[in-house]
Amino acid sequence: MAIRAAVAGASGYAGGELLRLLLAHPEVEIGTLTGNSNAGQPLAGLQPHLLPLAGRVLEPTTAEALAGHDVVFLALPHGQSAAVAEQLGDQVLVIDCGADFRLQDAADWEKFYGSPHAGTWPYGLPELPGARTALEGTKRIAVPGCYPTAVSLALFPAYAAGLLEPEAVIVAASGTSGAGKAPKPHLLGSEVMGSMSPYGVGGGHRHTPEMIQNLSAAAGERVSVSFTPTLAPMPRGILATCSATARPGVTGESLRAAYEKALRDEPFVTLLPEGQWPSTAAVHGSNAALLQVAHDEAAGRAIVISAIDNLTKGTAGGAVQSMNIALGLPEELGLSTIGVAP
Amino acid sequence: MAIRAAVAGASGYAGGELLRLLLAHPEVEIGTLTGNSNAGQPLAGLQPHLLPLAGRVLEPTTAEALAGHDVVFLALPHGQSAAVAEQLGDQVLVIDCGADFRLQDAADWEKFYGSPHAGTWPYGLPELPGARTALEGTKRIAVPGCYPTAVSLALFPAYAAGLLEPEAVIVAASGTSGAGKAPKPHLLGSEVMGSMSPYGVGGGHRHTPEMIQNLSAAAGERVSVSFTPTLAPMPRGILATCSATARPGVTGESLRAAYEKALRDEPFVTLLPEGQWPSTAAVHGSNAALLQVAHDEAAGRAIVISAIDNLTKGTAGGAVQSMNIALGLPEELGLSTIGVAP
Amino acid sequence: MAIRAAVAGASGYAGGELLRLLLAHPEVEIGTLTGNSNAGQPLAGLQPHLLPLAGRVLEPTTAEALAGHDVVFLALPHGQSAAVAEQLGDQVLVIDCGADFRLQDAADWEKFYGSPHAGTWPYGLPELPGARTALEGTKRIAVPGCYPTAVSLALFPAYAAGLLEPEAVIVAASGTSGAGKAPKPHLLGSEVMGSMSPYGVGGGHRHTPEMIQNLSAAAGERVSVSFTPTLAPMPRGILATCSATARPGVTGESLRAAYEKALRDEPFVTLLPEGQWPSTAAVHGSNAALLQVAHDEAAGRAIVISAIDNLTKGTAGGAVQSMNIALGLPEELGLSTIGVAP
Amino acid sequence: MAIRAAVAGASGYAGGELLRLLLAHPEVEIGTLTGNSNAGQPLAGLQPHLLPLAGRVLEPTTAEALAGHDVVFLALPHGQSAAVAEQLGDQVLVIDCGADFRLQDAADWEKFYGSPHAGTWPYGLPELPGARTALEGTKRIAVPGCYPTAVSLALFPAYAAGLLEPEAVIVAASGTSGAGKAPKPHLLGSEVMGSMSPYGVGGGHRHTPEMIQNLSAAAGERVSVSFTPTLAPMPRGILATCSATARPGVTGESLRAAYEKALRDEPFVTLLPEGQWPSTAAVHGSNAALLQVAHDEAAGRAIVISAIDNLTKGTAGGAVQSMNIALGLPEELGLSTIGVAP
Repeated sequence: MAIRAAVAGASGYAGGELLRLLLAHPEVEIGTLTGNSNAGQPLAGLQPHLLPLAGRVLEPTTAEALAGHDVVFLALPHGQSAAVAEQLGDQVLVIDCGADFRLQDAADWEKFYGSPHAGTWPYGLPELPGARTALEGTKRIAVPGCYPTAVSLALFPAYAAGLLEPEAVIVAASGTSGAGKAPKPHLLGSEVMGSMSPYGVGGGHRHTPEMIQNLSAAAGERVSVSFTPTLAPMPRGILATCSATARPGVTGESLRAAYEKALRDEPFVTLLPEGQWPSTAAVHGSNAALLQVAHDEAAGRAIVISAIDNLTKGTAGGAVQSMNIALGLPEELGLSTIGVAP
Repeated sequence: MAIRAAVAGASGYAGGELLRLLLAHPEVEIGTLTGNSNAGQPLAGLQPHLLPLAGRVLEPTTAEALAGHDVVFLALPHGQSAAVAEQLGDQVLVIDCGADFRLQDAADWEKFYGSPHAGTWPYGLPELPGARTALEGTKRIAVPGCYPTAVSLALFPAYAAGLLEPEAVIVAASGTSGAGKAPKPHLLGSEVMGSMSPYGVGGGHRHTPEMIQNLSAAAGERVSVSFTPTLAPMPRGILATCSATARPGVTGESLRAAYEKALRDEPFVTLLPEGQWPSTAAVHGSNAALLQVAHDEAAGRAIVISAIDNLTKGTAGGAVQSMNIALGLPEELGLSTIGVAP
Repeated sequence: MAIRAAVAGASGYAGGELLRLLLAHPEVEIGTLTGNSNAGQPLAGLQPHLLPLAGRVLEPTTAEALAGHDVVFLALPHGQSAAVAEQLGDQVLVIDCGADFRLQDAADWEKFYGSPHAGTWPYGLPELPGARTALEGTKRIAVPGCYPTAVSLALFPAYAAGLLEPEAVIVAASGTSGAGKAPKPHLLGSEVMGSMSPYGVGGGHRHTPEMIQNLSAAAGERVSVSFTPTLAPMPRGILATCSATARPGVTGESLRAAYEKALRDEPFVTLLPEGQWPSTAAVHGSNAALLQVAHDEAAGRAIVISAIDNLTKGTAGGAVQSMNIALGLPEELGLSTIGVAP
Repeated sequence: MAIRAAVAGASGYAGGELLRLLLAHPEVEIGTLTGNSNAGQPLAGLQPHLLPLAGRVLEPTTAEALAGHDVVFLALPHGQSAAVAEQLGDQVLVIDCGADFRLQDAADWEKFYGSPHAGTWPYGLPELPGARTALEGTKRIAVPGCYPTAVSLALFPAYAAGLLEPEAVIVAASGTSGAGKAPKPHLLGSEVMGSMSPYGVGGGHRHTPEMIQNLSAAAGERVSVSFTPTLAPMPRGILATCSATARPGVTGESLRAAYEKALRDEPFVTLLPEGQWPSTAAVHGSNAALLQVAHDEAAGRAIVISAIDNLTKGTAGGAVQSMNIALGLPEELGLSTIGVAP
């Protein structure tokens, strides 16, 4: 019997990617789709790549519209999820692609988001230590941010193995879909094509405390994070360059061994063969995360590169993967590690 | 029991797309993969987006390596398919993604390709009148060129309905993967990003006689084609702008009605709702062809726009669709009309 | 003594390109800059590439602010130029980069723009027959549209020489800056990168009557135009593919000869050597128009390709070139045929 | 009287950019142009954006062809400059855009380039402490690498002011022209569009010792550098994200003050106003370097972002700027801080 899934915020990029993946999921039947300013419009013009849903019309985002489903995905602006979730009741699986329930520390939340903390839900990054257990059978999932996904997958094996000093330096490049579909001048094609630019420099990006939370948990001590996001001239993809001072005795071999061990059974996270480096093209549209590690002896640092699709593994794919776990389905169901390239 | 499929030319773009689709095909098991200069190499470095095949090693392209399969896809340079096909015998389904067996007219072949004509195989564009019948049970399929796919799908309904004068003017923009993976200076990223440029102007492009063949068959009279291909700064996709003088009495309504009728039962070709126009982004990685029509009363012309993914519907997807028909499988098996966007 | 120039609409793409060129013009001193919603802001954040003007602050667009200059460039939304120009008086050179004064036929204007016709000014495409004479000493210049510039330069030599039937078919690809800087969803980088799409299909684009006007004048008879614009994934550039049925007796040689003759003394329009084709990359940031011609004997058509930078020769460069003529300066002053490539 | 300049390696990207800038230089006359595999070909097809030089034919790269000029620019593969320079004699100004004479430490050279060290020439990054003095009147100039230009400009003010610990972490994104014009599969447009990927990770990139050399000189102590270059889907531009632990007592204000002081009189390096961040688009084709700084208190690090055009300030513009100094011309002659955007 099919799992009925609703998507709130179906006209945005996260919503569109959720629908793309749910259409390919053998156990899911797509139910209600909602929007705000686009309510009443057919999906044809809003998501022209989703032909099988072209005739679907968006309803307003209300608890009534979202009732009667087994799973409700929320792809809403920050701060709107708590009220909707509460009305849906605790028997429906609610999967929030927004930030509202990601952080454990209320002070962090208030500092970075400027509103009262709504709470903390099981965190939808199954690869982190202990995460799968927390997701099994849960009715509430907080899907990680796209950058924290890329960065946490890159660094948790080394921190969990005690190989790195607790000061990580991260520079990540993201495709423009990470900035959403609301039209703003700096996101125009004319502005972004041919251009790289940073934003949120100096510790201000909201994904920073989420990275600190994940890496600190893996390390068993407080990890500081210097995070610089940059906007790259591509629609999708995150390439994260992560490094930290290697602890005494760490070698290229011991570094690599830690990743091989930590990732041995992971279906979606792959340490590439030596000499091959991740690219965002290779994970375009796929739920895979590609990793490669290097030990720079001269600089005394370990460098880990990860590539994900910000909309797939970084958002909608991670959400579906976590849904599978919560519902007791095979974790890989409906998901793929095959990219669309070139 | 699975259909065993081999791919000759697995390191190129057509080969990679074939593998991407075959991996998702529920009835196909991927057998031997071959290459020429890349024989002996693992697929990991050549097609890094195909993670499930990363460990596969390319064999040299020989009849021995390709023997023992139910289906052999040939993604070889022009002129190499005939010899391979002959050695494979007539009990194996051979699907040629090259040009060798597309043209019916030997003189056309010799004029445009400069070598003796190898013959004509059933043509793998199932939507053309009579094409499905020719494909059922066949052991040989000539996969159409990418441009002829986009153009023939755009214009055959109007020509078959007798609405257009037999002089078509086509301007098409293609992503760079259409030019293949062999490195040439004008295909460098530095050259193509930010640039549009034409090539093969004035009737010289090899796909021209193939378009003429298809449109003339649909029209029941010789159709002349003025075809100008252009290289666009994107990896995938073809946008074809096709027009011809409308015959007396043709209106916007009669034009649209002809397309609705011709495409009513087509799973992969969609006439968009009025007011919505095709884009290559909407078919990225999908087997769909999107069409829209307009009647320019002042200029007296019908304009038809089509968008396809050159590697999917334009090559590998069309090949798999035709394979399904030849083998008696459901035509849509393993194929999708869902694009990866944005 | 320097020519003082003001730019109204300095925060947009046309305004920015005017300033880029005027900064390099040896006889021009840049005076007042105005904006509407951006009035009061420094140029630093609006046009970050114009470092020498970073400290300039935009004033509101009023006749008072624009008074006291020798030249006023108007880069305003359609319909706003007439009122401003009237207040500036007839001793100042007013150069309108908008559409308001381009069309001679009031009915055409009203049909395509939906408002009363404001009049017709000398047309700033100096290469057209008779255009330079009309520009000499004028105090009013209507700068052509970007598409009409590309198309008129491509086809006027052949029409003036009587080589083509009066039915032109044009398909042009434009960079996204042609659509302006106002943020709209379909112009987001996420939407345009990797995508080609048409718009204004079927005769509806406002530049169509302007092309008809120019080509008809060159031909000495009414020329119909089927025009299809497409949006390409690049910030700048227009590639126009133009064709028409060749009249009896036309050959590749006679076609080429007509262009060589017509363009012999043109500083900014170049017929490329045989075998070399225009690309938009080659004219990036330059005032050059590159042309190439072909005669398709089988289809009976002449094909002419032109490439320009829509913001330079297509807007601001054409404006400065026309200003030079109007003021009696050397036509090439401050302009260049050198592109920024790759 | 004009300065006669020759360019060896005129068909490549560095050579083309040199010619673009020299064409705009009021004191320079362009003399002999040479190439290797392209010798005998006209420049029209090789550098189609340089219309004024379209008729020039490349000569083979020999001392005879390069004799008789005041300045000879070498844009040759690594290792070829020494032999040519020696034959040119010590009265001609030789400006090497290659790496051969950049490094002071022979062991570094041999380790990273694998050949005997040819020597050290005055270093063409005038903004570094003491660099201008060394360039005045010199007959030999080593033009810096593109990454070292971006990184050294970003960090020398802070290191010279003693604000940072001597361990810098650099992640930089470069446009594809930095990889040159020789066609390689991974540089195809199909591969790079839509993709970010790293290379030379872990300390192996040849520009690393050059950065260490420059930053150590500024700091007065050995600075270690962890450098990760990434390839971005754009033809031009470098965005460098540079950081280091801030020394005790450093604040955002003291950091900013150090840059304001160091850059006060620099014509080509600009610290942007607070709140504005560098982008590569803003320096497209310009000789400007844009900088912004931030102090991340939580992470204890100073972050400096710089943006340059890798071909202009990063190669050919830096070369012309240094030539101006060597010849006693105004340093800014023929160069511009105006970018071509969008």
